[in-house]
Order: sequence, then structure tokens, then C-alpha cells
Amino acid sequence: MSRRYLNLTPLPEALAAMRQAFPPGDHVETVPLRQAVGRVTAEPLYAEYSVPPADIAKFDGYAVKSSETLGAQDQRPLPLAEYARVNTGEVLPPPFDAVVMIEDTWDDGGIPRIRKSAAYGQHVRRAGEDIRAGELVLPKGHRVRPFDIGALATYGIDRVRVRSVLVGIVPTGSDLVPLGTAPAPGQTVETNTLMAEAYLTRTGATCRRYGIVPDDPALIREAVEKAVAENDLVILSAGSSAGTRDFSRDVVGALGEIVFHGIAVRPGKPVLLANVDGKPVLGTPGYPVAAQTVLREVAGNLLAWWGLSPLPCGELDVRLSRRLASDLGFDEFVPVSVGRVSGTCWATPHPRGGGIQMAVVRANGYLHIPAAREGIEGGEEVRVRLTVPPASIAHTLVCVGRRDPALSELGNRLSETGYLLHCCNASTMGAVLALRANTCHAATVALPETEEAWNDLVLRYLPDVDLLRVQVARTELGVASAGDLDADSLASLRFANRPKDTAARLLLDAWLDRQGIPADPPTGCADARVCPARVAEEAGLRFTPIGYESCDLVVRKDLAADDGVAALIRIARSPESHASPGSAGKGRNPT
Amino acid sequence: MSRRYLNLTPLPEALAAMRQAFPPGDHVETVPLRQAVGRVTAEPLYAEYSVPPADIAKFDGYAVKSSETLGAQDQRPLPLAEYARVNTGEVLPPPFDAVVMIEDTWDDGGIPRIRKSAAYGQHVRRAGEDIRAGELVLPKGHRVRPFDIGALATYGIDRVRVRSVLVGIVPTGSDLVPLGTAPAPGQTVETNTLMAEAYLTRTGATCRRYGIVPDDPALIREAVEKAVAENDLVILSAGSSAGTRDFSRDVVGALGEIVFHGIAVRPGKPVLLANVDGKPVLGTPGYPVAAQTVLREVAGNLLAWWGLSPLPCGELDVRLSRRLASDLGFDEFVPVSVGRVSGTCWATPHPRGGGIQMAVVRANGYLHIPAAREGIEGGEEVRVRLTVPPASIAHTLVCVGRRDPALSELGNRLSETGYLLHCCNASTMGAVLALRANTCHAATVALPETEEAWNDLVLRYLPDVDLLRVQVARTELGVASAGDLDADSLASLRFANRPKDTAARLLLDAWLDRQGIPADPPTGCADARVCPARVAEEAGLRFTPIGYESCDLVVRKDLAADDGVAALIRIARSPESHASPGSAGKGRNPT
Repeated sequence: MSRRYLNLTPLPEALAAMRQAFPPGDHVETVPLRQAVGRVTAEPLYAEYSVPPADIAKFDGYAVKSSETLGAQDQRPLPLAEYARVNTGEVLPPPFDAVVMIEDTWDDGGIPRIRKSAAYGQHVRRAGEDIRAGELVLPKGHRVRPFDIGALATYGIDRVRVRSVLVGIVPTGSDLVPLGTAPAPGQTVETNTLMAEAYLTRTGATCRRYGIVPDDPALIREAVEKAVAENDLVILSAGSSAGTRDFSRDVVGALGEIVFHGIAVRPGKPVLLANVDGKPVLGTPGYPVAAQTVLREVAGNLLAWWGLSPLPCGELDVRLSRRLASDLGFDEFVPVSVGRVSGTCWATPHPRGGGIQMAVVRANGYLHIPAAREGIEGGEEVRVRLTVPPASIAHTLVCVGRRDPALSELGNRLSETGYLLHCCNASTMGAVLALRANTCHAATVALPETEEAWNDLVLRYLPDVDLLRVQVARTELGVASAGDLDADSLASLRFANRPKDTAARLLLDAWLDRQGIPADPPTGCADARVCPARVAEEAGLRFTPIGYESCDLVVRKDLAADDGVAALIRIARSPESHASPGSAGKGRNPT
Repeated sequence: MSRRYLNLTPLPEALAAMRQAFPPGDHVETVPLRQAVGRVTAEPLYAEYSVPPADIAKFDGYAVKSSETLGAQDQRPLPLAEYARVNTGEVLPPPFDAVVMIEDTWDDGGIPRIRKSAAYGQHVRRAGEDIRAGELVLPKGHRVRPFDIGALATYGIDRVRVRSVLVGIVPTGSDLVPLGTAPAPGQTVETNTLMAEAYLTRTGATCRRYGIVPDDPALIREAVEKAVAENDLVILSAGSSAGTRDFSRDVVGALGEIVFHGIAVRPGKPVLLANVDGKPVLGTPGYPVAAQTVLREVAGNLLAWWGLSPLPCGELDVRLSRRLASDLGFDEFVPVSVGRVSGTCWATPHPRGGGIQMAVVRANGYLHIPAAREGIEGGEEVRVRLTVPPASIAHTLVCVGRRDPALSELGNRLSETGYLLHCCNASTMGAVLALRANTCHAATVALPETEEAWNDLVLRYLPDVDLLRVQVARTELGVASAGDLDADSLASLRFANRPKDTAARLLLDAWLDRQGIPADPPTGCADARVCPARVAEEAGLRFTPIGYESCDLVVRKDLAADDGVAALIRIARSPESHASPGSAGKGRNPT
């Protein structure tokens, strides 16, 4: 009924076992030159002929015999006797051995004159100056760049042998529906294979996606057999966990040999690698962020081992803005947003759940906490692998705190100015500490609309920092409950969702105090919760208002002169930002 | 008959004029999600529904009512009374409010038991935890990454409005032949539009290449009119210079208004920008490296201005290994190879000619010398824009000196070990200075095969450096001449191709000395030259042997322990490297 991973293999060991089980093979195909960009050369490429094939003019002008130009001087211009008009790139007709630029001649009655003698070979491109026939153009294993193909074409190479790995991607899961179908509760849109295809294609692999296979061992077996027969590598998406409907292990175990099952990686634990007919079958987790980690760190590693090229990915040494805990023994990958604040690059972490795809979408990079580390301290230098062009970091603003929907709209408008707003979720205290340490461009705090709250929760921790504060959202909160709130029911209510120092907690405690009811200590159980009216309404619950929460954008004054921060403040203060507070966050894609 | 650029516009002014003439327009198209990777969003994208849509199980296990698990302890395991088996990702059936992981249960006669109570909401993903319906997924202007499309698909977005610029690319030139045709002397393979397509497509533009247009004003006019009607931007490749067959200026000047003609950029000077029916027509130079510069710095700039995304390109602050001269008033772009030597990254320049495509192919980046600089000193810190993934720098070996064809084969074999060999051409003195300054991993020097030459040209400049030396090629040199070399003709011969301290010069001077003939001072004219036998033979000249040149790989002993350098030495010393000295450089592409 239940089943455990026997062992979680450490990541380095898993990769070593994988490389040993699947040595680089001979995966090659020939493609037309135009399709070679981004692919990796399987063989060295040599020039088919010399370029230029003969001596040619470097400039527009006159081909001359250098020996006949001797004696031309400023004071004694020389009319050209024997010459030929040549344009840039044209072959020098014999017996000429030099070129005089048209700019260095004067037209006098149809005869060009020069004021300086021409040296032998002047302004002439020698045959083979760029490359000689048979000379190496690109070595084996080179990822072809856009401008490389200009050179290859020039040297007569119009087809290229490139490394080629066929990857078959099989989605499994009875809960999956294809892209374009709205999922019913309990259903999930099948997206992991789409993502795998997009990612792996860019390493130079050729991907083929198969149809969704329900959780049925016989059907999975059939799909794996077909994919193994048709590809060099098979990705079996989901089903490699240890639940009652996870059949991947049994199926591939019966078809071949398990190399490992379970890797000490977060996110990404339930990874399965098997050898079926000498080919690797990789079972990836269903959680999308876990699947991404495995695609990058395991499938990407195998493809690199086989000679394909990992995605170009900038690296940056930055400081971590706050402590990150991590379990000893697990290689952990954490999405972060990097921004440069007062000359120092800081990485601020996003949530790590395997299902929080938005964390990866919001991030501009990720960092790797090795298994030997129990965590990384705030302020420590870390290496971040970027998922955006490194140059974009200079235009990135990091905002730490409440990720209010109003921030999204601010970010949209900010993007018009060329700046990108990255919002990293944090408590009020987290936001205040980031402001104090100067690791963010801006912070957002959600507080009861009172000076007391602002003083207690913000100012007292930042006594020496001048701040700018702009309200970006204002929300009425209340108690959502199944029944009416009378004195009796209030006394026995247990409230969920109210961590210390949140507006919900502070407003509720003050409201309960006004009702003459002592606040109960938080427990694991809940009969009621504090939320905005809209949320209570959507859940079909009764709403009893208790007060207003203000979400404020807070900036250190010493950063306010920064171009990006100034633009952010200007937009936050503009009237459009307050036009429709109620509609914030109800965006709609145009159809 | 001749024509000059009236003014060379400085690059920043040219870009400003371009941006003013062509403000960002409304260039948008809708593409299926799979095709959105690498494109730039034209509008913000919002989630179509909440994810998860309902509370779901985070782990495989049992859905329970948290209130019924109170009291379970290690000493007092509790059998579950009411529960439902759930797998990861399944909706929590009411009235359950928490999940117990299967790993935390014991099966006892078919009834699962627990040793710890479950908190309210434990191991449950709340509805909307990842994203809520209507929440922002991607802002406008975001370049879609491979993993972004997984998130977009999950949130119900299967089509994306992306920025779209149609670029028409028109090749002009009567000397052009299409790819796949071997060019006769004076002909050039039409490659610039292929390169433009590959480059601009990757910024998110949609490119259309037109057929080759000969140098005929009427035909060029027709082609430009058609391309302007069908595209948002037209690239007119070549013909924008000031030669007799450069009609671009006249044609586009007649059709519209010239914005600028000639930019103070090297390479890239003959650039033409015109406004035809409100659309930009950009005339690019014919020399491929000049064309690349204009594609990157001008066309790329316009597309960025219009909201497309420039190619991701890592930047690295490095030191320049030797002085680079540059003319005041010209923005200059120089291909370089960057390598890390003893912990410091050094950039070594390649030749700068607009026709030397191999310089760009061999380089892994380029640097920009601003117009206000007359050059950059050796050792100065410069910012290099990389054309390879930054991580590859750690595996790059830079070799400075004679770029002997034998080096290509060394590089090919070295690539099997994961290292890339970059060869930067330099004189013997340049190579020796690079060794002395420790700015390269290895150097190659070509010398007469005598201890005297080695001592005079290498050792005396490196008295305190221990060196390793491996011969990689040995070539017999001789005098190539039209006629026989007897005493009379020898006395009157003028020799070309023999700069000071080259093996050719040293061997020739020694040989002339042996013949009792005084060496003449070098002039601009030449009747004979020193070269290998093969070259004389190919040119149909008589060959008189004068001695042997040795090309040696030289490495500082203090670098020999470096993994990459050790691999290079091992390969250079291996017997295969000396198997066929004569055939080096006569590579052939397999067919």
C-alpha cells in the first residue's frame, strides 16, 4: 500500500552513475546551414576554398602599378597613366599590384591625380587573407552562433554535421488534460512536456512529445517501449514518485534495470533513471519546479555529457539578502531575484515549493545550495545562475514585502520606462529588515491604517533611516464566518490566518477588544478567518468588517535619486495608480 | 565619378536620429504558446484561473480531519477512523482539512496508524497558492523563457500576443552568387542576408530574405519598394558605399528621405539610413564583419527601441593583454579572445579588418572602444561582450603567436578533453611579450632551427621564466622567383615579405650572406619572396631552398600544472601530432 525510496542518492553520485551507464554515443545528423544555428558541430569544419580566392581591392578606387606611382607628392600631383577603376571586393586585374582610394584622388579633366605614391600591395586583400582552402573554420563541439553561419557560407559550407539526440517525452497521469482544456478540479493541464521540449530543444536536442498516457501499467509499458525504440533518451513525465498510482518504477524496472530511484535534490526528489535496451529512461517529478530542476540538473547534464551544449546562462557573484536554511544532505536549488542596490548585487529568495511555478517566473536566476551546507547566511557571497541576460540586472528593481496585486500594475507601468519590477514576498518584518540592510530598492508593508502601527512595526526598527512612503492599495478586512457573529458564537470562535504583526491580526485583536472578547491563542484549528470582503463573498461566507489595511510602498530617501527608484515612486504617486483600487489584480487577457 | 560621404555621423548621434525618426510602433502578432519562447510579450499576461483551483494534497498519503488526529503520539499510535487515500496533486475531498504523508503512517491490518497529530491545513496546497485567477503572470516586454511556457500553460494561457517586427532583407550586388554555388574569381557567396536573418530572428523579429538584386538602380528601386510595402524594416545589404556601383543612396534618396549616410564606426562606416513611406531602410556594408557591426549596433538598437529584446550577451570585465590603437572620433569594435590565466581574465585582440570573418569566428567576444578614446593601453581594464556562454571562459586556452595550421589540429584534439584552444596571431616578439606578461596560456613562435635564434629572440627577453618548448611544425623555406637564381639576378633582386626577426628574414639574410651577396634594404617593390615549397609550386614559381623553420609551442612552466595547459602539452607531444607534418592544414569536410 505504501512504498518508500530505498535510498536517496546524492546528486553527484547519481550523475556519476548516469554518466557511467550511458557513455557518449554517436548521435549525429546533417542539417542545412540555416538550421545549424544553436546546434553543436559533430566534426571539425574546414574551408572549401580560399577567401578571397584572388587578390582583390579593399576600397573603391583605382588599381595601379605601384612602381609607376613613385614620386607623387603634395607639391607635385601625378596624373595616373595606366589604371583600372575598381570597386571594393573586385579582383585586381593584372598587372596592377596596388589600389589608390578614390578619396585620395582628384579628378582633373577626366584623369585622376594622386599626391602620394602607392606601396606594393597597398589596399589589396591578398588571396587567402581571411582563410585558406582546407583551413579549420570551426572545431568539433562548437555551438554555432548566428554570425558563424555567415563565415561558413562564405567558405562554401552549406550543410553541417551536428550532434543530434532524439528525446522522446511521454506525459503520464490520469489527471492530465491537454493544453487548451480548462482543468476541472483535480485535473492538471499537461505542461511539463511542453516545458521539457522548449528547454531541451535549446540545448541542441530534437524533441518529440507523445500523447498523455493514463496511470495504467500496461499503457505506460507500451508507451515506454515505443519511445525507447524511437529515441535516444526517454523522459517519462510524472509517475516516478511512490504513490499508489506511480507505476513508472515497476514498469521500467520490468523493462530494464534501475540505475537510481530518488535523488537528494530539492525540489526534485522523486527522480527515476533506468536503462532500457541500453537507453536511458528518466522519470521526472510531476511538480513543475521539481521537473525543471531535474530537466536542468539531470537531463541537461546527460545531454552535456553526450556533447550537446547547455543553455548559455550567465553567472553572477552576489550577496544573499537573508539567511536561507537548507537540509544537510540535499542539493537544493532556490529561485532568486537579483538587483543591484547602491552598487552591490543582492539576491533575494522566492518560495521554494515544487508547485510554485510563479516563483521561477518571477525570479531572474537561481542559486544552488550544495548538500554539504546547512544553509547560507544573509550577506554571504553566492554564485547565482541567471535566467535573463546579465545586462538586464542593471534595470531590475527588487521590492521586498507584501506582494499586493497593485504591485503588478505598478510593474506593468514601470516596464514602459525600461525598468523591471521584481516583487519578493516577505513579512512586514522581512521588508523592514531588507530596508535596514539596504538589500532592496523598495519594500511594501501591509499595516492597519494607523500611525501607531507604522511607528511600532516600521519606524522603531529604522530610527536613522529617512523614508518615503506611498500608499499603493487600501483594503477593508473583516471576519469571514459560516454563521452570524453574535456574542455567543464569538466567544467560541477559533481564528486561522493571523500571524503576529500582520494587519489581519492587529485589526482583529483590536476589534475583539472593542467587542469585549479576549483573543484566543492561535491553534491548529479554525472556524473563522480574516480576509477582504471579496474573498469571503467568493467562499460564500458571511463578512463582518473590522477595519482597513493600507499597503504602502516604502523607499529609503537615499535611493530616491536612483533613476529606476525615482520612476517607481513617480508611477506609484500618479493618479492612475489610485483610479480603481478595487479592480487591482483582476487582470484579463485580451482575446 | 567619385563621391564622398559628406559627413561621418558619430554613432550616438546616428542612433538618436534613428530613434527620433522611427518611434516605437504597434508591431504585434498572436502566436501559439509553443512558438512564444524567445519572443517578447506585447501585453501583460494574467492567469485565466487559480492554481490550484481547489485545496489539494501536497504529498501521497491520507486526507484526514485534523481535529480527529489530536492525541496521536509516539507512545500512543492512533488508527485513522475516517480518511481518504490521496495522491500528490489530488483534490482534498470534503470534509478533510489536512494530509498525513504515507511515510508517516504504519499499516496495521489494513488500517493506517499515525504517531503525530495533523495540524489544520497540513500538507495541503491551498487553492490559488501558486497563482490566483486574474493575477499577473508576465509583464509586457518580457522575453519568454523555456520554463515560462510551462507556467503560462498551467495558468490556461495557450496563445500569446508578442511583439513582432517584419524585417525584409534585400541582398544587392552583381558579384553575388547564392549559397551552394562555388564563386568564380570576383564573385562572392551571398551570406550577409543569411547572417542577418539568423541574428535578427533571435531578437524576436520575423525575417524574410529576398532574392539577389544586381547593381541596377531600376531593379534596386523595385526591390526596395516591394520590401517597404511588405515589411516594417528593410535591410538593404551592400551598395551603400560610395563606389561607382553603389546605387543604394540614390535609390532610397529618390524614394524617401536620407536620415544619415556614413557613421563614424569601425568596422561599419558605409551605413545608410533612409525614411521611405515612414519605414526605415537601412543600407548595410558588404564586408561581413562591418555588416555584423551594423546589424548589432544599428539594426539591433532600432529593434530594442521598438521593444524587441537584444540577444542575451554576457559581459565580463577583463584586462587587455596589449595596447590597441584606435582613431579618435570613431567608435570601434574589436573581436577578442578572453581566457583566464593565473586567476586574471585577459582579452587578446584579433585582426580588425571588415573582411576577416575568421577573426569573429575565432573570438569569444568583442570590445568597444568609444570614439573619445585614442586607444586602450595594455593591462587596462575593459568590458568585453561575450559571444559564448560565460562559463566556457574557464575552459578556454589562449595561445598567442604564429597561427600555424598544426595548431588547428591540436585544438581539435584538445576539444575532446573539454578545452577550447583560441589562437591569436602575433609576431614572435608579440608572443614573447605575452609570455612575459603572463597574459596567455601558451605561445607559438616560428624560428630558424638554431639555438642562436631561440636564445636571441626568446630567451633573452625571458631571463627569469622557466619555459617548456614543443615543436609542432617544421617547414622548409626557400626563395620563390620567376626565373633562375644566378649570381647576376640575385644581386638585383628585391625581396618582399620579410619583416624583422621572422624566420623568413633571418634564413634569407643568412643564405644571402653565404652566397656573398649583401641584403638590400626592404622597399615597397618585390621581385621574389621567401615561402614554403608548396606555396611557390602553387604560384608556378621556381623554389630555391634556404633552410628550415621550426614552429614551437612554448609554455611557462608555472602554468604547466593547469589542467588545460597540461592537456595541451600532452597532445602536442603525442606521436599523432607529428604523424603527417605535410598534411597539416589541408583538412577536408566529410561529404
